[in-house]
Amino acid sequence: MLEELKKEVCEANLELVRRGIVIYTWGNVSGISADRKYMVIKPSGVDYDGMSPDDMVVVDIASGERAEGKWKPSSDTDTHLELYRRYENIKGIVHTHSIHAVAFAQAGLPVPALGTTHADYFYGDVPCTRELTRAEVEEAYERNTGKVIIETIDGLGYDPMAVPGIVVKNHGPFCWGTSPANAVYNAVVLETVAEMDLKTLLLNPNASLAQYVLDKHYMRKHGPNAYYGQK
Amino acid sequence: MLEELKKEVCEANLELVRRGIVIYTWGNVSGISADRKYMVIKPSGVDYDGMSPDDMVVVDIASGERAEGKWKPSSDTDTHLELYRRYENIKGIVHTHSIHAVAFAQAGLPVPALGTTHADYFYGDVPCTRELTRAEVEEAYERNTGKVIIETIDGLGYDPMAVPGIVVKNHGPFCWGTSPANAVYNAVVLETVAEMDLKTLLLNPNASLAQYVLDKHYMRKHGPNAYYGQK
Amino acid sequence: MLEELKKEVCEANLELVRRGIVIYTWGNVSGISADRKYMVIKPSGVDYDGMSPDDMVVVDIASGERAEGKWKPSSDTDTHLELYRRYENIKGIVHTHSIHAVAFAQAGLPVPALGTTHADYFYGDVPCTRELTRAEVEEAYERNTGKVIIETIDGLGYDPMAVPGIVVKNHGPFCWGTSPANAVYNAVVLETVAEMDLKTLLLNPNASLAQYVLDKHYMRKHGPNAYYGQK
Amino acid sequence: MLEELKKEVCEANLELVRRGIVIYTWGNVSGISADRKYMVIKPSGVDYDGMSPDDMVVVDIASGERAEGKWKPSSDTDTHLELYRRYENIKGIVHTHSIHAVAFAQAGLPVPALGTTHADYFYGDVPCTRELTRAEVEEAYERNTGKVIIETIDGLGYDPMAVPGIVVKNHGPFCWGTSPANAVYNAVVLETVAEMDLKTLLLNPNASLAQYVLDKHYMRKHGPNAYYGQK
Repeated sequence: MLEELKKEVCEANLELVRRGIVIYTWGNVSGISADRKYMVIKPSGVDYDGMSPDDMVVVDIASGERAEGKWKPSSDTDTHLELYRRYENIKGIVHTHSIHAVAFAQAGLPVPALGTTHADYFYGDVPCTRELTRAEVEEAYERNTGKVIIETIDGLGYDPMAVPGIVVKNHGPFCWGTSPANAVYNAVVLETVAEMDLKTLLLNPNASLAQYVLDKHYMRKHGPNAYYGQK
Repeated sequence: MLEELKKEVCEANLELVRRGIVIYTWGNVSGISADRKYMVIKPSGVDYDGMSPDDMVVVDIASGERAEGKWKPSSDTDTHLELYRRYENIKGIVHTHSIHAVAFAQAGLPVPALGTTHADYFYGDVPCTRELTRAEVEEAYERNTGKVIIETIDGLGYDPMAVPGIVVKNHGPFCWGTSPANAVYNAVVLETVAEMDLKTLLLNPNASLAQYVLDKHYMRKHGPNAYYGQK
Repeated sequence: MLEELKKEVCEANLELVRRGIVIYTWGNVSGISADRKYMVIKPSGVDYDGMSPDDMVVVDIASGERAEGKWKPSSDTDTHLELYRRYENIKGIVHTHSIHAVAFAQAGLPVPALGTTHADYFYGDVPCTRELTRAEVEEAYERNTGKVIIETIDGLGYDPMAVPGIVVKNHGPFCWGTSPANAVYNAVVLETVAEMDLKTLLLNPNASLAQYVLDKHYMRKHGPNAYYGQK
Repeated sequence: MLEELKKEVCEANLELVRRGIVIYTWGNVSGISADRKYMVIKPSGVDYDGMSPDDMVVVDIASGERAEGKWKPSSDTDTHLELYRRYENIKGIVHTHSIHAVAFAQAGLPVPALGTTHADYFYGDVPCTRELTRAEVEEAYERNTGKVIIETIDGLGYDPMAVPGIVVKNHGPFCWGTSPANAVYNAVVLETVAEMDLKTLLLNPNASLAQYVLDKHYMRKHGPNAYYGQK
């Protein structure tokens, strides 16, 4: 089932390695079926070398149970499920431990909107979640990771596609998008702007970006009158 | 038309990727025809993979209209046009989001002349523009980006070929040169000296370079009695 | 003798180069035979280019003498021997001069547990040894390096497999594991979390990790009810 | 003439590129003939791509004149000559603009001996020269660069082979060795320890190394009773 989506998800996982934002098994990408009944996700703890679409795992969105696949799904499966259930416009999700995004997560800080590179993809700071409580960690850690992401986004009150990523405190980045490939693209952008921002803050701890520049750059790519790219 | 220039411009765009200073579509290079009537530039938002000279877009310098080409020109077209119109000795222009040059742009700081690597190519600090006003951003953003670059250079009163690059506040570097390839060369140099400078300032926030060393290094490569290189 | 182990140890040494954590001859990996009578280790000062299993050196654990091999064993042989003698569950050891782990070693600081990347492999801070005394350095430097590692681990009172690595003050990292390959894996992880931690501390010198997150992540991979990976 | 030395010098220049410590034409390596009458050096401003032994230039040590070769020698020729004339045990010299060594040069700081990686090759801090005076720069810049290197070494009173490198203030590193290849090796080591040291100092500005550890590590590789490596 969902052979095309398995190919897309497998390819998106391999792209993480080619782009240099994961080593070993430190990342996972998923995608959702058009009817939003099934998620296809990377298996848990399996190496990228030699990974093929057949290794992908199909998970039932409603029940969280494996619907098809020879492996156990990623240990972060419950986090992905929470996000797909809550946000109907998310079609692909990726989690990595990319170095600079993790640095912000470990520092407990958002990746601030400091320039147009950021504004071309993220319409504002990429937020950092609060720390999970002991109870949240001990009871249903991965599901609660999803819940604290949702709490953060909903608390800030924006469409998750306007800022398609977040850093989970002490953990690392989750990004999403209009497809598994687009989610990976956003994860690469986040890692790159996180590196730019760390270096900017070392030069000037008070760096900031005017709201009207943020508006302009985001809107020229994503607004109703967008004029970046080919139509 | 301008087949040779299209090849040069295409090749210069691909060189950005090979040198590791752009990912995805985050850069654009242009060149100008010998009669300075036409600019050849990368199309907007098109991937570097598989890009060929046929994909380049020809733009009329005076009108800013597309003269030939199957794609829309780079969204930064109006910035390039402003610079070609103002400075008759510029023959190639490049814009990137290279990480260390962007860090200085986001910090709102010039890339300071701190050593001979810098002095071999840039005869003084690489300046940072002022922030665009809200009106400048909202009305004609790309053209006004060109105008603020010109305002900065003309305000400092030097020949733009003496310091063939600038960082636009909160945005990133623009470089230029005697050809599209030379502009790219300068962009790679700027990214490298920006990395050197960031690391220098972390070691010694008061680092500086004597004017006579700057003079000597710049002049031994670019002065009337230059003796670096062959002839 | 021990042909299979020689292959494993040789391959693990070459993996250090492929992972980019050693240049030149700046690293060495060893493994121990199943009966714990012999150690197989890289020869001293021999290049990785063209290195083959035949170049590996077999050393008698009890006597420290070479049992087989055409080369002298690594100059760090006595450090490896001390660790194998003391800890019966260590089956592979690696020493490198990887840049970020060395930075912590030179700073005299542990690599702190600041996030889940760390917690997935190291159950707490990766400690830094005290400085060796002049007498320890002058008398039996490599053996005493092993002894100060043991003193540090035993002083903190944990199973060395719970935190399979350490940084030796002013020197660099030693890691270990369930096999030579696993030791190398841990060395790559340590270098990566050291880079994450340096960058985290530049953003927030007070960064820290809740003990219950450390417990959760370590235990989901290594505890009695581990559920990460396949089975 | 000196065909074998030309091969060695050409190969050493290409190794700079492979090791990632030069881009474009930003480095040069030379070697000296066994009778110390001739220096073979890279031509000035010529690209590494396609460079062959035939491109190397032979310079008379005594007169500084070109003895053979189709190109002008490196613009840094006079610096190399000064060092060969003063120090009879130097057999190869290299100059680069490698990023971290340049950062120390631009900061006006020595690359401090903070660990055993450093101590394995450099028996003490790698010094930074004083700034050249205006007169020194304007009169005979490259020769005076050699003279200020010599002034620094002789002022500190050590054999230049004990610390086979230096950073020239606001300029960059010069390294030397027992052959052109060994000089390049030392330049790669210096760049690497400079990166380690920058990162160490960000973690702990007061980091230092005990003299007896420096002695031990340097002597185990280079002293009369050296035991590192094969014989």
